[in-house]
Amino acid sequence: MKDCIIIGGGPAGVSAAINLKLNNKDFIWICGKSPSKKVSSAEHIKNYPGLPDVTGKQLAWALDNHASLMDIQKNEDIATAIYDLGGTYAVTAGENTYESKTIILCLGVTASKPIDGEERLLGKGVSYCATCDGFLYKGKTIAVMLTDKAFEAEAEFLCSLAKKVYLFPIYKDCKITAENAEIIVKVPQKIEGEKRVERIICGNESIDAEGIFILRSSVSPSVLLKGLAAEDGHITVDRQMRTNLKGVFAAGDCTGRPYQYAKSVGEGNVAAHSVIDYLAELKNN
Amino acid sequence: MKDCIIIGGGPAGVSAAINLKLNNKDFIWICGKSPSKKVSSAEHIKNYPGLPDVTGKQLAWALDNHASLMDIQKNEDIATAIYDLGGTYAVTAGENTYESKTIILCLGVTASKPIDGEERLLGKGVSYCATCDGFLYKGKTIAVMLTDKAFEAEAEFLCSLAKKVYLFPIYKDCKITAENAEIIVKVPQKIEGEKRVERIICGNESIDAEGIFILRSSVSPSVLLKGLAAEDGHITVDRQMRTNLKGVFAAGDCTGRPYQYAKSVGEGNVAAHSVIDYLAELKNN
Repeated sequence: MKDCIIIGGGPAGVSAAINLKLNNKDFIWICGKSPSKKVSSAEHIKNYPGLPDVTGKQLAWALDNHASLMDIQKNEDIATAIYDLGGTYAVTAGENTYESKTIILCLGVTASKPIDGEERLLGKGVSYCATCDGFLYKGKTIAVMLTDKAFEAEAEFLCSLAKKVYLFPIYKDCKITAENAEIIVKVPQKIEGEKRVERIICGNESIDAEGIFILRSSVSPSVLLKGLAAEDGHITVDRQMRTNLKGVFAAGDCTGRPYQYAKSVGEGNVAAHSVIDYLAELKNN
Repeated sequence: MKDCIIIGGGPAGVSAAINLKLNNKDFIWICGKSPSKKVSSAEHIKNYPGLPDVTGKQLAWALDNHASLMDIQKNEDIATAIYDLGGTYAVTAGENTYESKTIILCLGVTASKPIDGEERLLGKGVSYCATCDGFLYKGKTIAVMLTDKAFEAEAEFLCSLAKKVYLFPIYKDCKITAENAEIIVKVPQKIEGEKRVERIICGNESIDAEGIFILRSSVSPSVLLKGLAAEDGHITVDRQMRTNLKGVFAAGDCTGRPYQYAKSVGEGNVAAHSVIDYLAELKNN
């Protein structure tokens, strides 16, 4: 049982990890691919106090380097589900499940909303993890939506299992060449099916598929953890970064505007200190 | 009429100033002596993301340098009073008074509470500003409390005006040698007087004085601005760093724990963005 699991590798996640490490907490940092791609892609950052006029790459490196210098271990998987075990939590990432007393959600903001039908059919043909659920679709017809090149290996793995794969890459220059793969330059708009996934709708096209893998770098908060309070797409938190769920905290862009690096590191810091206080209380009770 | 006045030169103030400057706002940054002495005096800071393992001096320099590189003007006076003019505000600092549509309070936390009697007798013999009120005590007997060497010039100025000055330096090695000055190595505990200051109580000693100058680097929020809501000594704010007073925002240690540099720069950033939103609304109404 871990003290904490931090989910997210952006500035809020780095800041939370640094503070938990300094306080000798036993935690897992599920950070996805690092350094943060979103930070790296910023052209110029002029308002991160103390680092005047850095490029996104420089800031991303500085944050990543800070964590590395402190020997903070990174788990580069993507968290796909969190289960409330009644006071503690189980987090699924890649092929593993970890238990923890607390969670800090640093999920950023996903530009894209969930696809119509995605939440309803999650676990009924909708999956976020090729390595976890791929074997269920051996010899079947599936769809795979990828938001980034980083997921091509996972998509290729799916091509090696399924009979036919409809690929929806939401970026340019998809390099997948599997013979049973068909690239469709459209965005899936709706996932349909009575009890399980039956077809994908994009524009006026309907594509039959028994499953769809949605490979994106973060899962929307409400899908990730049922019962988590949100408003206008942002996780609801108080000034101590507490969510409505006991032991679950959030920090960074996922808690609301302004979307700013300084705000994110500040909230990551506060969330970590709230976790430290919370663990101390648990111990005393 | 300024767009904003930022009060405080610590990390929250720097962060707010950087963001207002980037947004071309017309503001005054009343920052006291810079770089921040409180930051400078920290031995090691390991949790300011992106600057691993810096000394307090290095962080203070980095923040100060960031503001300098952006040509942000500093006003090194100390703000001694804010008046609510009904929708706008007047701020007294040094010998000047400035008007502004908004205020960002980045006051830090004062280790010391107000002296007993200080708030009641403010403006009735209690003063925070030698250059503003000194002339009122020409040829009289006064007390001067100094929290830092930085105020010695101000205290010497008072010695040049008053007949007799009782000095209460709250630090070691006070260098003031004026013939009419008497150094008392005690802390003033009470300021007494019916309608005006009459005497200062320290321990079992009572010292007659017609006025007392309290020279400290920040004034407590409730004294600075009447009507400002506070709880446990911290200014009450919401997630947008709004206080209970329209157009008044706060950031950094003065809003509560944890007292952390990352939290302060985050809140300074958010407060500046809230000011920008508030000014846009004013313009549209």
